[in-house]
Amino acid sequence: MSSNEFIGWVAHDKTAVEGKLSWEEYQVKEWKETDIEMDILACGICASDIHTLRSGWGPSQYPTVVGHEIVGKVTRAGSAVTHLKVGQRVGVGAQSDSCLKCRRCDAGRESYCDKMGGTYQGKFVDGSGTGMGGYARRWRGPSHFAVPIPDNLETHVAGPLMCGGITIYSPLDDYGCGGPNGKKVGIVGIGGIGSFGLAFAKAMGAEKIVAISTTSSKKDLAMELGATDFVAMKDNPDDYKRLRRELDIIINTASNPDQPFDKYVWMLRPRGHLINIAAPESAVMPIPIGALLFSGANIGGSAIGGIPQIEKMLKLAGEKKPKFLIEKRKMSDANQAVRDMVDGKPRFRYCLMNE
Amino acid sequence: MSSNEFIGWVAHDKTAVEGKLSWEEYQVKEWKETDIEMDILACGICASDIHTLRSGWGPSQYPTVVGHEIVGKVTRAGSAVTHLKVGQRVGVGAQSDSCLKCRRCDAGRESYCDKMGGTYQGKFVDGSGTGMGGYARRWRGPSHFAVPIPDNLETHVAGPLMCGGITIYSPLDDYGCGGPNGKKVGIVGIGGIGSFGLAFAKAMGAEKIVAISTTSSKKDLAMELGATDFVAMKDNPDDYKRLRRELDIIINTASNPDQPFDKYVWMLRPRGHLINIAAPESAVMPIPIGALLFSGANIGGSAIGGIPQIEKMLKLAGEKKPKFLIEKRKMSDANQAVRDMVDGKPRFRYCLMNE
Repeated sequence: MSSNEFIGWVAHDKTAVEGKLSWEEYQVKEWKETDIEMDILACGICASDIHTLRSGWGPSQYPTVVGHEIVGKVTRAGSAVTHLKVGQRVGVGAQSDSCLKCRRCDAGRESYCDKMGGTYQGKFVDGSGTGMGGYARRWRGPSHFAVPIPDNLETHVAGPLMCGGITIYSPLDDYGCGGPNGKKVGIVGIGGIGSFGLAFAKAMGAEKIVAISTTSSKKDLAMELGATDFVAMKDNPDDYKRLRRELDIIINTASNPDQPFDKYVWMLRPRGHLINIAAPESAVMPIPIGALLFSGANIGGSAIGGIPQIEKMLKLAGEKKPKFLIEKRKMSDANQAVRDMVDGKPRFRYCLMNE
Repeated sequence: MSSNEFIGWVAHDKTAVEGKLSWEEYQVKEWKETDIEMDILACGICASDIHTLRSGWGPSQYPTVVGHEIVGKVTRAGSAVTHLKVGQRVGVGAQSDSCLKCRRCDAGRESYCDKMGGTYQGKFVDGSGTGMGGYARRWRGPSHFAVPIPDNLETHVAGPLMCGGITIYSPLDDYGCGGPNGKKVGIVGIGGIGSFGLAFAKAMGAEKIVAISTTSSKKDLAMELGATDFVAMKDNPDDYKRLRRELDIIINTASNPDQPFDKYVWMLRPRGHLINIAAPESAVMPIPIGALLFSGANIGGSAIGGIPQIEKMLKLAGEKKPKFLIEKRKMSDANQAVRDMVDGKPRFRYCLMNE
């Protein structure tokens, strides 16, 4: 158990994204007494994995093992770990490190710590190595970022919630979805994370849930997942006007820069929020100042979420059982699953399962 | 009293901004029983007046009488007016019309009504004419938009608060300035409205008030007005970094499009707000998506404020006596005051006084 050599799907260069991951041994971080190790039960496939495999956000550091929607059983807990026990089922998301001292960390806002470290590609603050992800048999890392999974939540569901789920749950929660000023919610983009957004908004008590897409092709599906209304921005370009100044919150999961941001803004009530959660590979958004001034609304961003919010999300998901469409794939078929992901095939999210 | 011909400073074309206003009779709106008339005591000079006089926001409709920071004594109240009496001192700001039926109007958010009508240039919804402003002897318009001035507030102070004041007070109030999540506030631009922002933030109980300017030239003045800290973005370009992720609210009163928006954003805590309140004559703002995503902050806008919020502001101003720097000018010297305004001479706000 004490070896630093683990086995998993290693990417050696950007051709990995074509399904050229190689099952082999790799080096993990040096063991610390604040760490845990786990046997991985499942790992969701996130769009970030694809961006990283192909060096889409700038050159990735190879070799790497991606995957940051990890669920496993704790097999080892360092002597300084007090909140987790061997045998416990835990989840690890996109973040595995931070300073744990700053104002944001103190407030449970670890994802906004200046020392925020990604589960893969991130270098640990204490110099103990580089993070390796969950397309593998085992995982090792700081226990602070491993969150207990409630018993009433299935493993293959918990996986994709650890990054995809929290990324949309966090702004919904922070901006009051379902509360007195958050009854009317829009979700732009009905893909993996967008579909989670519809299901969460319903579970959180939103009364009007508008799925906003380019075409009408996903309308039936969106309504089935929790939407109460649907707007196709391209097929029906004036339809958004009936929601003028009406919505409290819009979460934008789409990452193309040529979106009608001003139209989204005009669907918001004064002091409403349009929150972008996708990280496009190019990144300047032209914002018409007039739309912001005269609507009185906001455009913001949000990056995953902190540990207390992940706990809150998992509790809600266990209790309310929102309708999440997640397809199980075999860990041994990771290369085919990555190719299918690149081809846009998942409806809507893949989770790799170790046997 | 029943004539529709009033006398005041009329602009006939865009040369008016060079100080070519002409003191003469002009046509006001048709009288309605929901209207009031007042003898004007004072009218602040707002940057909007200058934009309008020179057709800076697109062609203005001439002849016009500008001025939308009006304080006067009610001389006539229509039979349908219940909340105001003859002899009462009232203020009228930048808005004099709205539908009074929609969700925003019901919520006291009249400035975001789709039928929002400007005090000058605006056409009244009921077809009764075009709004005329306060560089004049008298004013006529809908009573809903005339707000009683508290006895403990001086006339020349109340004037500039009706537009300049509420424009910065409204977002400070809405985003919780002084409250548990609004103790740390930044104000960009130490001009007329920015100086009001410093004074209001102090009166509202903010503990850290950062004046953000281009150079250090206004530092002493800003500190005197209420600032507790000062950042000169150009003179000291790295200084903003010590406020990284710290401020709850930043109000941006500057209107030049070449501002370091991303640096402002990085001074905000997660879920903090940068609110633009200036309406530049050109209007697209390039926003780096990354700064919004990874800061977790928002960029928004705000347009004046509704009637309940104006009342709340006037009450605070009367009670707390924030330090507002307002210079009295004679109504008879309006042309010279406009020229001085164009030349950037006011320190910081002019109020035209009728004798």
